[in-house]
Amino acid sequence: MRNQITVIAFDADDTLWVNEPYFRETEEQFAGLLEDFLPHHSIVAELYKTEIANLPLYGYGIKGFMLSMIETVLRITEGNVNPEIINKAIQLGQEMLNKPIELLDGVEDVLKALHGKYKLVVATKGDLLDQQRKLTKSGLDHYFHHIEIMSDKQEPDYQKLLKHLDCPADQFLMLGNSLKSDVLPVLAIGGHAVHIPYHTTWVHEHIDHTIEHENFHQMESLSEILPKLIE
Amino acid sequence: MRNQITVIAFDADDTLWVNEPYFRETEEQFAGLLEDFLPHHSIVAELYKTEIANLPLYGYGIKGFMLSMIETVLRITEGNVNPEIINKAIQLGQEMLNKPIELLDGVEDVLKALHGKYKLVVATKGDLLDQQRKLTKSGLDHYFHHIEIMSDKQEPDYQKLLKHLDCPADQFLMLGNSLKSDVLPVLAIGGHAVHIPYHTTWVHEHIDHTIEHENFHQMESLSEILPKLIE
Repeated sequence: MRNQITVIAFDADDTLWVNEPYFRETEEQFAGLLEDFLPHHSIVAELYKTEIANLPLYGYGIKGFMLSMIETVLRITEGNVNPEIINKAIQLGQEMLNKPIELLDGVEDVLKALHGKYKLVVATKGDLLDQQRKLTKSGLDHYFHHIEIMSDKQEPDYQKLLKHLDCPADQFLMLGNSLKSDVLPVLAIGGHAVHIPYHTTWVHEHIDHTIEHENFHQMESLSEILPKLIE
Repeated sequence: MRNQITVIAFDADDTLWVNEPYFRETEEQFAGLLEDFLPHHSIVAELYKTEIANLPLYGYGIKGFMLSMIETVLRITEGNVNPEIINKAIQLGQEMLNKPIELLDGVEDVLKALHGKYKLVVATKGDLLDQQRKLTKSGLDHYFHHIEIMSDKQEPDYQKLLKHLDCPADQFLMLGNSLKSDVLPVLAIGGHAVHIPYHTTWVHEHIDHTIEHENFHQMESLSEILPKLIE
């Protein structure tokens, strides 16, 4: 791999730092606000339904999640809402936006080892300002040549990124925790991909088949890529 | 100017297409929802106060505006909210996200005339997905080498853009309707700027002094730049 790759792109949420557990925690607290109306799992299911319905309009990120929480409150309470519940949903979202960054194990060592040997980029979905702020808070921004905040991670989005980086697909390696967003589209356009699963993955990112491909590697932690990329 | 400039960046909202009038219309309709509680101008003032307070956390764009509308409803109704009002505020925001694109006069002719002679880019604030969608809907995307959606338009944001485009500041020309966002920071880092005022400008973008600078030009419409850039 080390003779071929020139650009290494890292997913951010749940690849560089903790993210999904914060959404799960917030969902739990959100369900708690509405426990007088519906059982817990039904509230979480209603919220997910709202999020998926709004995804084409709002895209990924916390602000869209907040709007979906509010819409879910209105639907579940059927006109009998206590405004305090909506206030609390807004507060939950604002707390997410203000969370400190918790780096995953070994991240900084891996970036330090690869820095200067490869062009390192971040390729992430989500709200523009929120992702930029997280990168600044992480203290990792100086390792990266470029930060690409993408409205989606499908084949055309990666093709645009490669064109923009002036990088042939077979020199591109993507690392991330989502088979659906970080692996499949990259393999499909001729790139290389490494899957590093995280213990919590949003159900929207799940796929139900296994991947076998010569450009695909499965790893348990980010640091396992070092022997493949550095002599 | 034509011997020096290599990259021309266009602001999008109210420079390429209509935007601010939609916000003003929505504000009017929003104030109408709350007329039982406060006079019209006080509601608009409360909404603006909420938007400015949330700007550092939410950034620019319609989703943040929607969240600020909802927060304003809760504050103005002081716990006596009819949930229908919040539903309608969400609807107003969703209608904004779904608005068709209305190009400003002469925009396409100007882009056609400059295309191939200069590197043309879009430099705009707002929600990532929303701005990308507007550009696609506009049918103008093929004129542009690059689309930069910026979380803010201050000097460091433009410096990052120039570095990214590999463009010396004195070869960079920015065109836009906001003196505060499109002109002042660009002049400050050594670039050129053209101000093309639009009849409606968000109060947050107002400045209260006049600009005199050798790299600054004031124009009444976008097409006035052609004689300066093309022989």
